[in-house]
Amino acid sequence: MRRIYLDHAATTPIDGRALAKMRPYFSEKYGNAGSLHYFGTEAKKAMENARAEIARAINAEPNEIIFTSGGTESDNLAIKGIAYANSKNGNHIITSVFEHHAVLHTCKFLEKDGFKVTYLEVDSRGFINPKELESAITEKTILVSVMHANNEIGTIQPIGEIGKICRERGIYFHTDAVQTLGKIQIDVKKMNIDLLSASAHKFYGPKGVGFLYVRKGTNIHPLMHGGGQENGLRSGTENVAGIIGMAEALKISIKEMGKENARELKLRNKLIKGCLKIKDSWLNGSLKNRLAGNANLGFDFVEGESIVIMLDEKGIAASTGSACSTKSLEPSHVLRAIGLPHVKCHGSLRLTLGRDTTTKDIDYLLNVLPAIIARLREMSPLRKGIDISEFEGKIEHTHEGHAH
Amino acid sequence: MRRIYLDHAATTPIDGRALAKMRPYFSEKYGNAGSLHYFGTEAKKAMENARAEIARAINAEPNEIIFTSGGTESDNLAIKGIAYANSKNGNHIITSVFEHHAVLHTCKFLEKDGFKVTYLEVDSRGFINPKELESAITEKTILVSVMHANNEIGTIQPIGEIGKICRERGIYFHTDAVQTLGKIQIDVKKMNIDLLSASAHKFYGPKGVGFLYVRKGTNIHPLMHGGGQENGLRSGTENVAGIIGMAEALKISIKEMGKENARELKLRNKLIKGCLKIKDSWLNGSLKNRLAGNANLGFDFVEGESIVIMLDEKGIAASTGSACSTKSLEPSHVLRAIGLPHVKCHGSLRLTLGRDTTTKDIDYLLNVLPAIIARLREMSPLRKGIDISEFEGKIEHTHEGHAH
Repeated sequence: MRRIYLDHAATTPIDGRALAKMRPYFSEKYGNAGSLHYFGTEAKKAMENARAEIARAINAEPNEIIFTSGGTESDNLAIKGIAYANSKNGNHIITSVFEHHAVLHTCKFLEKDGFKVTYLEVDSRGFINPKELESAITEKTILVSVMHANNEIGTIQPIGEIGKICRERGIYFHTDAVQTLGKIQIDVKKMNIDLLSASAHKFYGPKGVGFLYVRKGTNIHPLMHGGGQENGLRSGTENVAGIIGMAEALKISIKEMGKENARELKLRNKLIKGCLKIKDSWLNGSLKNRLAGNANLGFDFVEGESIVIMLDEKGIAASTGSACSTKSLEPSHVLRAIGLPHVKCHGSLRLTLGRDTTTKDIDYLLNVLPAIIARLREMSPLRKGIDISEFEGKIEHTHEGHAH
Repeated sequence: MRRIYLDHAATTPIDGRALAKMRPYFSEKYGNAGSLHYFGTEAKKAMENARAEIARAINAEPNEIIFTSGGTESDNLAIKGIAYANSKNGNHIITSVFEHHAVLHTCKFLEKDGFKVTYLEVDSRGFINPKELESAITEKTILVSVMHANNEIGTIQPIGEIGKICRERGIYFHTDAVQTLGKIQIDVKKMNIDLLSASAHKFYGPKGVGFLYVRKGTNIHPLMHGGGQENGLRSGTENVAGIIGMAEALKISIKEMGKENARELKLRNKLIKGCLKIKDSWLNGSLKNRLAGNANLGFDFVEGESIVIMLDEKGIAASTGSACSTKSLEPSHVLRAIGLPHVKCHGSLRLTLGRDTTTKDIDYLLNVLPAIIARLREMSPLRKGIDISEFEGKIEHTHEGHAH
């Protein structure tokens, strides 16, 4: 069966060129980067080259790059690390209602530990208003955390503007750039970013590795204690092969960014246009300032999960939203945030394109999707003609009873 | 130049068979284990097979295995996770003075946060006395953390006895088994272990992946918040390839354990015997209950770091102790713990054997080491005939001035 992967926001394959760079570091150049001898210095040197490469990519200094196990650890380290290190100066954090769960759940955790968190709303297209951010700042605000682009609907926030506001007020600014690094040019200096989270497997690097950019002079505590690696900010034997793969994957992504974005954008727009021909469908989020590869569509009277399952039977890999929340019975907090009614949040389909996506793939999807939606609508208790508002309560109840 | 690697306690190469198992999961079977579609379930299935394999290896249940980024994270998760989840029942933790820094520094951190920690002493051979542990327990004790085998001197603690004491008192028992898993048979049920830390790269698996065994019903908090992976105990996209490599490497290690231990033991004893022929030398730790591949030797009047550097010039990779503390100017806390005078702690050489170690390697080492020690002693201000006790203060001072 021919398989089409349209879930690149969840994860990507390792680029063959990045994998080739990693290969010697598995079983040949296997030294611990902390060892003094030949094997250790060989590993250390390669790791430091990778660090310099990554720093260059975002206009940072090498010693501002802290290697981690991925985006979630980076977000946790950034937010908890800043909160605990700066609690004497204040206990207020500002974020948005539609951040990734790695940010939201970390903030919820901090709320239980005495911190106050303001969750900024987004407008119906998925954008934060920097003016609202500005008025949310108090004397006790120590950190603002706003993601660069949303993982579900792909809207790109005005983080340059937000960074400027934060820098002027002397407040740390963290951005989760997991969805954008390698897709949008990032300059941490120009954008006034103090902390930036990234994850290799989102830009054709390996899973299990990421980094946190921490601007020089930032007052931050570690999340993990131990051998004192990464300037004491992240203990643990460094994942040398993973780090090397990440650096190479990032270099390639940035080099090919312009061409690839243009290619994906064209395909993505064709995809959206085709999907919107289906009756009672809509695009979640804005077409402007949106990741080139992201499409997030809604279809009345059907559940996103059912669409995903039926597409999978046709060989197409898609998702309803974040892969991290697959098991959750809750509707997408992102779609709720842009003001979709509860019942409509369940009908979302996220299609995210990548380097391997072809016109043929999009044609195939557009060929099979209408019949799937029609079939699901036939089976749906929410099918057209029934006033869905009546069902809201019942639908929620049904959901709670589901054995997912 | 022929290279001989005698630093297997720091890290090991990935076993070719484990790497072969990982390979398809880099760029072909690259799904996010959280995704509902074919690619996701393919990854998930392989990951769950790995989990079951690992559980079997230590007589645990699959859902008691929590994947992490390595030993340090596992130690942090275990100790902080238990401390914060059980602080209502008590604030007292018992550990030993010569744990890995991932345990010690985590405990030091908790002390600043209101917890009380008792650091058990070890005897001159490097063993904890379970009776002392027993008398250190108070009504407020919530956790005991004692490593299975020490990373510097290889002494194996009586963790079965310790586990029994803890279970009888209803206190959680955590063991850092980073140095032993794959080298000593572990049965978490028989040994009454509640939490066990492991790291793949110590048993010929990849760097950047490990696990924490958490006994069913254990009250523990996560260290990282986010998508809720690993039963909510460890958020973050799972490192599928790494996990698969870890499971395979562990399976192989356990299968070949008996034969490999016997082989290494023979070589190691030959090594120790040979080294002790050098005048004014000694073995740190006990020969009994010691990891088969571990030798840790002391040489009067010389610095371990200088030995490591000169051995490296001869193509031999060795260490003074933990790779994690290479940069530290402090003498080994482990050697201090077994009662070595300060000045003697600087003269240690750790040689740790592995699968690739041959008789020829040992012969070569024994051939070059005496001349290195002699040469260093010639250059040493601590050379024989001078009362070294007079120098203690000065030596420390000299160390602080070193540009490492």
